[in-house]
Amino acid sequence: MIKFMDGDFLLDTETARALYHGHAEKMPVIDYHCHLSPKEIYENKRFRNLAEVWLGSGDRCGDHYKWRALRARGYEEDSISGPDDDYKKYLQFVESMPYFAGNPIYHWSHLELRRFFGIEEIIKPENAEIIWKKANKALETLTAREMMYKCNVKVVCTTDDPADSLEWHAKMRADKTLKVKVLPAFRPDKALNAELSWFADWIERLSAVVKRPISSLEDLCGALAERIDYFDKMGCKLSDHALDEVHYAPATYERANEIFLKGLRGEVISPEEQDEYKGYLLIFLGREYAKRGWVQQYHIGALRNNSKSMLERIGPDTGFDAIGDEVYMKKLSALLGELDKDGEMPKTVLYNLNARDNYALTVLAGCFQKEGVKGRVQVGTAWWFLDQQDGMRQNMETLMQVGLIAQSVGMLTDSRSFLAYPRHEYYRRILCSVLGRLVESGQYPAEELPTLGKIVEDICYNNAKEYFGF
Amino acid sequence: MIKFMDGDFLLDTETARALYHGHAEKMPVIDYHCHLSPKEIYENKRFRNLAEVWLGSGDRCGDHYKWRALRARGYEEDSISGPDDDYKKYLQFVESMPYFAGNPIYHWSHLELRRFFGIEEIIKPENAEIIWKKANKALETLTAREMMYKCNVKVVCTTDDPADSLEWHAKMRADKTLKVKVLPAFRPDKALNAELSWFADWIERLSAVVKRPISSLEDLCGALAERIDYFDKMGCKLSDHALDEVHYAPATYERANEIFLKGLRGEVISPEEQDEYKGYLLIFLGREYAKRGWVQQYHIGALRNNSKSMLERIGPDTGFDAIGDEVYMKKLSALLGELDKDGEMPKTVLYNLNARDNYALTVLAGCFQKEGVKGRVQVGTAWWFLDQQDGMRQNMETLMQVGLIAQSVGMLTDSRSFLAYPRHEYYRRILCSVLGRLVESGQYPAEELPTLGKIVEDICYNNAKEYFGF
Amino acid sequence: MIKFMDGDFLLDTETARALYHGHAEKMPVIDYHCHLSPKEIYENKRFRNLAEVWLGSGDRCGDHYKWRALRARGYEEDSISGPDDDYKKYLQFVESMPYFAGNPIYHWSHLELRRFFGIEEIIKPENAEIIWKKANKALETLTAREMMYKCNVKVVCTTDDPADSLEWHAKMRADKTLKVKVLPAFRPDKALNAELSWFADWIERLSAVVKRPISSLEDLCGALAERIDYFDKMGCKLSDHALDEVHYAPATYERANEIFLKGLRGEVISPEEQDEYKGYLLIFLGREYAKRGWVQQYHIGALRNNSKSMLERIGPDTGFDAIGDEVYMKKLSALLGELDKDGEMPKTVLYNLNARDNYALTVLAGCFQKEGVKGRVQVGTAWWFLDQQDGMRQNMETLMQVGLIAQSVGMLTDSRSFLAYPRHEYYRRILCSVLGRLVESGQYPAEELPTLGKIVEDICYNNAKEYFGF
Repeated sequence: MIKFMDGDFLLDTETARALYHGHAEKMPVIDYHCHLSPKEIYENKRFRNLAEVWLGSGDRCGDHYKWRALRARGYEEDSISGPDDDYKKYLQFVESMPYFAGNPIYHWSHLELRRFFGIEEIIKPENAEIIWKKANKALETLTAREMMYKCNVKVVCTTDDPADSLEWHAKMRADKTLKVKVLPAFRPDKALNAELSWFADWIERLSAVVKRPISSLEDLCGALAERIDYFDKMGCKLSDHALDEVHYAPATYERANEIFLKGLRGEVISPEEQDEYKGYLLIFLGREYAKRGWVQQYHIGALRNNSKSMLERIGPDTGFDAIGDEVYMKKLSALLGELDKDGEMPKTVLYNLNARDNYALTVLAGCFQKEGVKGRVQVGTAWWFLDQQDGMRQNMETLMQVGLIAQSVGMLTDSRSFLAYPRHEYYRRILCSVLGRLVESGQYPAEELPTLGKIVEDICYNNAKEYFGF
Repeated sequence: MIKFMDGDFLLDTETARALYHGHAEKMPVIDYHCHLSPKEIYENKRFRNLAEVWLGSGDRCGDHYKWRALRARGYEEDSISGPDDDYKKYLQFVESMPYFAGNPIYHWSHLELRRFFGIEEIIKPENAEIIWKKANKALETLTAREMMYKCNVKVVCTTDDPADSLEWHAKMRADKTLKVKVLPAFRPDKALNAELSWFADWIERLSAVVKRPISSLEDLCGALAERIDYFDKMGCKLSDHALDEVHYAPATYERANEIFLKGLRGEVISPEEQDEYKGYLLIFLGREYAKRGWVQQYHIGALRNNSKSMLERIGPDTGFDAIGDEVYMKKLSALLGELDKDGEMPKTVLYNLNARDNYALTVLAGCFQKEGVKGRVQVGTAWWFLDQQDGMRQNMETLMQVGLIAQSVGMLTDSRSFLAYPRHEYYRRILCSVLGRLVESGQYPAEELPTLGKIVEDICYNNAKEYFGF
Repeated sequence: MIKFMDGDFLLDTETARALYHGHAEKMPVIDYHCHLSPKEIYENKRFRNLAEVWLGSGDRCGDHYKWRALRARGYEEDSISGPDDDYKKYLQFVESMPYFAGNPIYHWSHLELRRFFGIEEIIKPENAEIIWKKANKALETLTAREMMYKCNVKVVCTTDDPADSLEWHAKMRADKTLKVKVLPAFRPDKALNAELSWFADWIERLSAVVKRPISSLEDLCGALAERIDYFDKMGCKLSDHALDEVHYAPATYERANEIFLKGLRGEVISPEEQDEYKGYLLIFLGREYAKRGWVQQYHIGALRNNSKSMLERIGPDTGFDAIGDEVYMKKLSALLGELDKDGEMPKTVLYNLNARDNYALTVLAGCFQKEGVKGRVQVGTAWWFLDQQDGMRQNMETLMQVGLIAQSVGMLTDSRSFLAYPRHEYYRRILCSVLGRLVESGQYPAEELPTLGKIVEDICYNNAKEYFGF
């Protein structure tokens, strides 16, 4: 029996331990996709207590995984996302912890206490008070930036709207005391979602930023290109698209512009029209990214806002999203194929939210490689609901069997929490476990351990550095 | 090497053995969903020999899993579901057994002999005669009820049509000698399937039961509500729906009534119309269940009657059903979202027949929790074709990673056979194996074993008792 | 730790080793589906060096798995499929090998060197020269036929167009020195794909072969039946269909003929029309196969030619295909159900390319069994992208849980390479590992090892021999 979460946590073979302690552990962290607040990083946010940093509160977006688990336990929403007392929130989380057996929250939460606060206690009601005191004591000096330094974070990419001024990013660029490279990433979902009610408002907002009217798709493309240039100047290296459904159909400019105008007027846009409009814009954007050497990310397959009553009550992105099951390979193939046609395809990382698509997506990615680039199109690490032990093992297994795991750009947190960095550690331990088994079972020569060690270091850090160009 | 099916069968770690022998083994059984015949329970059915109780025969619905396996072996249908001699049927089953290596039938069959008959022999031709004799001897006293007592069964819910008189249930309620609580469950599929040829006949049957004409959807809803009241009075705590495909679209009463009338007249009803009619009725029923504190079950994704020739020859539910692969998350989300809107959603257990939907369904369930209820909406145990070792492990793994296994209401047999109860034991052993590994691999603290033991007891019995309100 | 790829490679238990060394290892190979060139077998092709036989080159179709992996590494296409120097191609493959950790290419390549050339060196740059020399030396005598003999191959079925003259097959039948039974297999995809641009040309080609005009669907059916007779005379025992999408809808002859004529005229054929035309023809062909006792194979779900730019540059079947995700169970059920209706259904092996369909397809197959045939309809081994360790284990697990692995007709290479036969060994080792675990974990009695050994022998050889009638 292995001791609970000791130094060899999840390292189930001698090779795994050698790979982790000899290679993975020392590598810095590049967190190339997350939802941290640039303002909070710049201002070096202090947290009033463990509840705030651990569970979120007030208008601050917390940790949806934890909120979901607490809701499943039947607690009142007021004591989850609402105005209830911090200690009450904290306590019910601690009381629930033993019942999170097998859930990643059990591991994440203990890792968070251990790595940031040096708290080795098991999280359970009997230890609630001592954990609360120790953690709050530590939080007196443990600010947002200190959390990043503690985890050896070198690069962080936030997620930013094209209309965003990047004000905080500008300030961070000028701040010599900041020891992490914090870069913006370009997320133009609002430009693509012409079917949504806030489209016209957003176009107006963008128009204000570029200081000229946007009354045609051509104007929009021009404005987006200008913002891409600005983001590029601010160090941006990658974009990100939430393709809840994959929309693509070939479309002329005239046709796509018609649909754009319908969107501006707030008219209903059919799924077929979305195929044309979004397809047109994704091709345009892809080529712009390619010109600048950016990487594009497609996050595919979320089914959002399932509880309409909770959407009304507390808004989007609060833990009521799920996994879609639509088929999309044909459209995605056509979209990537169109980008690929003239050699103007950017490097692309694809993420699937439904684990059943692991194989299909990984194989499709392999059809769009390019001379001179390692893994130009590749499937990223297990995303969102799949970002847990089982999901990561399946993701890695698929990468090994029908892709090349050695070229993976590795882990990212996708998180809104400064405490999320130990998920890199979690990922690395699982990676070393998976690769370690190859050696232990005679599938990779033990004498080639140094090569496997190099592969581990590459996946942890070097591949991302090279691929994104940080 | 572990001895074949000894007391530690499937208990692959010390912790697993401690969890099973210290906790799971002693818990009574609640079998909250099955297809046993209330009449046979009331009459305390005696079986003429092992073939009858093991394989079924004549007009009696047998064990489809076994029939399917025998067909794959190429035996004649007459000696599977047909009029052939019992011993011949028995013998070819025994002859086949060694070739069922890896199939759950191999385990189930041996467990059945061991637990009910005390027969430890391996099932193979050389032992055919001795097993036959021993089992038939035991069957002299081993009646239907004795089988239930032997497995420590406390509650059983059968599956009953709204038009059913519940005559046998009434008799059982009056029978003081019956030591198992046997309750009806409400299965109104025939009210929903307006597109099927027998719809009008069934409406007439229901009309006869409620003793008034049913000539509008309003009438139907009234009749169903009346039957729900009656079922409730008879102890019913849950309903069950076979959603072979998930149909849902918002519909007015007028529209839904129109489609109802088309159904009555035997006209063709399109899939879109099914969305509206079934959606309307599912919302109505869901609210009725919620009012009475019932649980609703959705069994999603069967693809039935694939062999038309065998359907004609021996009828439905005889082993020619399969697993559908349609996408359905959007419609299911809309249906649950509509129910959830006014807080009138009943507790709901969702079952998927296609394992590829494990993740999506489990995450969707997590979007519809409610203050004051533990796991209001949850995914049930691996269903039908998935109710085997691999399917159960995947189901549990998914519950652990993106749900809370600690709150699962656990196992049910869904069976037509009195010999099926050892499947609870099978499930419990696998559960203890899965949870045991958490401790053995350092993922849950060994010193918290008592908590894990409580979780096991909850999943085996307490959760179902509390959730269903038995 | 287990030594790298020694005699017990992948045999992770004592039982696995007993099953492999006592049973699997000695069984001959039946490779009932591959894409080898009949001409090259007849002419007993010699290879100019290791690069040619290992990686393919020139107009010769190589090993797509290896090409895909090299492209993902970022090498130039000229040094993969193009005109570059053999040694350059070889060297970059060797340089890449250490980075193929976890990929089946790592195992296949080492197995190929070991089994055919007796080269035990690890494939890495330091060993490039010695491997090159040793292998090329061996290739002086190691011809195509010798490779087959070395792997104990008894039967090979190639893949042949109905319009093919089977000239090389005829020569092989007359060649007394050939110690492998090489048979044609009937692949009429071009007759079914009326929507493709080359349809009319191909019909003309077929017309020339049967020496009469084909101007109606009736003519086509007649011509196909004639070719089936001819193939049958040449020893053919099975057909093969690439159902990239499953098309089926009931159609009259008149309707199907209309669509055939549209195809001849090069008009656009809609997906619905494909359902009717292909459905009609698949039923016709299925009955023809059934009459002659042939087996039909359906390979379901490829998504082909994803990179249009590479399709233009180097043509189809060069490594740019992927896995589709369309749903198809309903149509497939209807197609099989129609064939089954009059008892005129041939034995059928179904292959799914998307692993997510493992369960659904295996269960569907189980609905179409027949008295007197073992596993009339069954799911074949893990196909194409799934033909690797993880895919095979999932395939076997599914066969065990919801089918009968004991009746599987086992492995085939589906390969274009003479070096592919060790994939049978790879499969057998995994099979013995999977079955061995049953015994080791107490799921199958250790004293029944001889039975399990017989099951292994059956899956390796006897089942295929009996099922196909070789």
